Amino acid sequence: MSQTFTLQSVLVLSEAGYQTQDVQVREGIIAAIGPNLSVIGEPIDGRGKLLLPGFVNAHTHSPEMWCRGLIPPLPLELWLGVLYQCPPLTPEQTYLAALWTAAETLLSGGTTLVDHLILTPGQELETIAAAAQAYQEIGIRACIAPLIQDHPMAVGLPTGQASGQLATTRQTQAVLELMETAVQRHHQPADGLYIAPGPTGFQLCSEALFEGCVELSQRYDLCLHTHLLETRAQQMLAYERYGVSGVEYLNRIGFLGSKTSLAHGVWLDDSDIDLLAMTGATIVHNPLSNLRLGSGIAPLLKYRQAGVNVTFGCDGSASNDGQDLLEAIKLGTMLHNPTDFEYRNWLSLPTAASMASLGGAKGLGLQEEIGSLTVGKQADLVLYDLSDWSMLPASDPLGLLLLGRPVNLIDRLWVGGRPILQDRQLKTVELANLRQRLLQGRSEWVTAPPALNQALEEQYRAVMGLGAGAKASAGKN
Amino acid sequence: MSQTFTLQSVLVLSEAGYQTQDVQVREGIIAAIGPNLSVIGEPIDGRGKLLLPGFVNAHTHSPEMWCRGLIPPLPLELWLGVLYQCPPLTPEQTYLAALWTAAETLLSGGTTLVDHLILTPGQELETIAAAAQAYQEIGIRACIAPLIQDHPMAVGLPTGQASGQLATTRQTQAVLELMETAVQRHHQPADGLYIAPGPTGFQLCSEALFEGCVELSQRYDLCLHTHLLETRAQQMLAYERYGVSGVEYLNRIGFLGSKTSLAHGVWLDDSDIDLLAMTGATIVHNPLSNLRLGSGIAPLLKYRQAGVNVTFGCDGSASNDGQDLLEAIKLGTMLHNPTDFEYRNWLSLPTAASMASLGGAKGLGLQEEIGSLTVGKQADLVLYDLSDWSMLPASDPLGLLLLGRPVNLIDRLWVGGRPILQDRQLKTVELANLRQRLLQGRSEWVTAPPALNQALEEQYRAVMGLGAGAKASAGKN
Repeated sequence: MSQTFTLQSVLVLSEAGYQTQDVQVREGIIAAIGPNLSVIGEPIDGRGKLLLPGFVNAHTHSPEMWCRGLIPPLPLELWLGVLYQCPPLTPEQTYLAALWTAAETLLSGGTTLVDHLILTPGQELETIAAAAQAYQEIGIRACIAPLIQDHPMAVGLPTGQASGQLATTRQTQAVLELMETAVQRHHQPADGLYIAPGPTGFQLCSEALFEGCVELSQRYDLCLHTHLLETRAQQMLAYERYGVSGVEYLNRIGFLGSKTSLAHGVWLDDSDIDLLAMTGATIVHNPLSNLRLGSGIAPLLKYRQAGVNVTFGCDGSASNDGQDLLEAIKLGTMLHNPTDFEYRNWLSLPTAASMASLGGAKGLGLQEEIGSLTVGKQADLVLYDLSDWSMLPASDPLGLLLLGRPVNLIDRLWVGGRPILQDRQLKTVELANLRQRLLQGRSEWVTAPPALNQALEEQYRAVMGLGAGAKASAGKN
Repeated sequence: MSQTFTLQSVLVLSEAGYQTQDVQVREGIIAAIGPNLSVIGEPIDGRGKLLLPGFVNAHTHSPEMWCRGLIPPLPLELWLGVLYQCPPLTPEQTYLAALWTAAETLLSGGTTLVDHLILTPGQELETIAAAAQAYQEIGIRACIAPLIQDHPMAVGLPTGQASGQLATTRQTQAVLELMETAVQRHHQPADGLYIAPGPTGFQLCSEALFEGCVELSQRYDLCLHTHLLETRAQQMLAYERYGVSGVEYLNRIGFLGSKTSLAHGVWLDDSDIDLLAMTGATIVHNPLSNLRLGSGIAPLLKYRQAGVNVTFGCDGSASNDGQDLLEAIKLGTMLHNPTDFEYRNWLSLPTAASMASLGGAKGLGLQEEIGSLTVGKQADLVLYDLSDWSMLPASDPLGLLLLGRPVNLIDRLWVGGRPILQDRQLKTVELANLRQRLLQGRSEWVTAPPALNQALEEQYRAVMGLGAGAKASAGKN
């Protein structure tokens, strides 16, 4: 059986650093870890290789792959104004983008991803079905969090007045019914496919929508996923609309819990962080996106000290612009060092690796099933070739993997014991073929971004207290 | 003649964005740029490819390649304490590290590097000769700035007293004589090899050493290179020792000029920045190293606004841990967005590309010879394959190149018209062979870093006002 195998003499992490062990996998489950185990199934030579639990790409938006490299550096609110003018994808384009996102995640050590999936209007269920199909085909463990909202975009910016065109009960109900249908059709934990209600964020969602998502999550035992306080403007909006911080608001309406993961969390103060720690919710840190959009530097070391579970994500490729999970982990490991002279608070490399694997599993409520090299857990495993050029001079494996620039060094990768990568090649999807389909499947707009909306820019500049200033400075070199 | 060729229908940057042009190169010099040029020499199909001037890896320490991945996250002063316990390299190891550094720089779009070269004690000239040989063989344009100092390491930390064991005149003179010998033997601009006096930084160098370097640079028309205010401790030290800022001190002794490049420049205040702008000196920004060592975030946008020339470097691989120049440019382009809500001040991508090429050339006083696609300049050129997997979906080429995760997408690369890369392979050095030599040439210490010096740590903690606190917290997860 291909899902039964024995890794021999492979390097694994230990309390003291590293040790060489054998690892038995029986029918997709880690059956034993120790020296000189008997061989069950296929024997696999692990010498010169490092075995880690798979990482989790805990926040992305797969459809944005089509926008990679497209939008110039702009703050989130203006960037969104461009993004939402890009024509919606066909289900085929969604399917390809999901394969593509999964492929890059797998090739950089990710065995699970959370797709906060942008839905094509009028084809919402087809969009979800297309992504689900892609993830099942390529074999990555995937949580699809359909991105839902019931307020129009214009409500998402602070305006100085608490009102706005809010959703009708009927609209909210329709969105929740859609979500329930998606759950009934695609939530298949036994197949490594999960649906999580994914309200965009409080800036674009009604209280009724959040409450409906919480109700769904209780009824079907689902995770919850949303954006949280990515920008200063969102922080301002929360106080304007609710009179309290965004964290306090979400907590008050019952959205925060141990199966809730929150993307970004850049603009939280100390009391927000304490509150978050109490709820058991997970912060998904997206350092590349936070820099590209100028959102800020999340207070990661404070999160850790307060006991908040933190993991890493790539975010969508319109704000990154790639799905190399090792790159996100590298930056997430280092970015916070300058925020604290007390270097003893800095993330150690074993801590960062654990945040990327077990931290991601916790955010999905899967910490008993995946996220560590533990007997009884699913074999979501990655075997890194330490003799690769990018790992020279073969010094500290974790130092080279997490702080270096590793490229295509994964010898093998399994999800639930199913072999997905072997000899550095994807086994489930042929990349050369995918590349052809991507080139054929792209629309013309991918080479020319829509223009920045001038009215939106004026509103944003007013909100942020930026001078009305002539546009002249915009193109300044 | 291999150094005469014509690129046909290649994408180049223009004021308006991009345009398709032909480019003639005659005997290593860009001879013409325009539509439908006649073919001279070899015709090269440029369709689907982007041609940029080569970037400059404007600050690195090649010997640190042997320490890649080795040292855990620590602040500069403690990290140095570990680094300087690593055994010195043999000339053969220095040669290999230089080849390796050059190879990674070339493979990520760099055609020039500045090697602030750590010298093996007692074999200083052999070290320089070994690096020079490597750069000439592989064909990269290289400025070797031998790292010199005449104070012992212990003087480099603030102590609360302005004195310390300073260098004797004899020691200083010996270092300067060594530098002059290196200049006489290896400064060969016509061959793309330059020597620049490279005092470590004011923290470890006497005034006489700086003045001697300035005198050498005037006599031989050399650039100058040094570290500047990388950490808060260095900022404190300058005031303690000189009573003025580090910038004011270096300016007063005549070290700052239009051929001086300064690595890091993290801890400068507004008046330092104005002073720097007046001198015409160049800041080399090393964002990866600044984060890994927790040094801080250099005020890059302020530099730009003040008119300071800025370019990018990888820094040595013990503090990065790689020599992927595109990675350094990416982070250097984005890292500063969160420091200014006025997004119109953010670096545009064409600006970042120009900083990485022309900015680097200026820092070496070579702006009339390299750094842009200009008739009459040397053909230091890089041809990027836009159909590469990492450049999909072939949207904005500069967006994908500078903000994406491009890997091994260089179709061809020339230095002074000499073909160095072709069909994504180095032509001058065989990488597989180099890999074998690196594996054979490594010492045992590359797998186990020396321990952190406890006395140094205590001194550092006192200087930085960090609690004496038990070591217990150091390994805390």
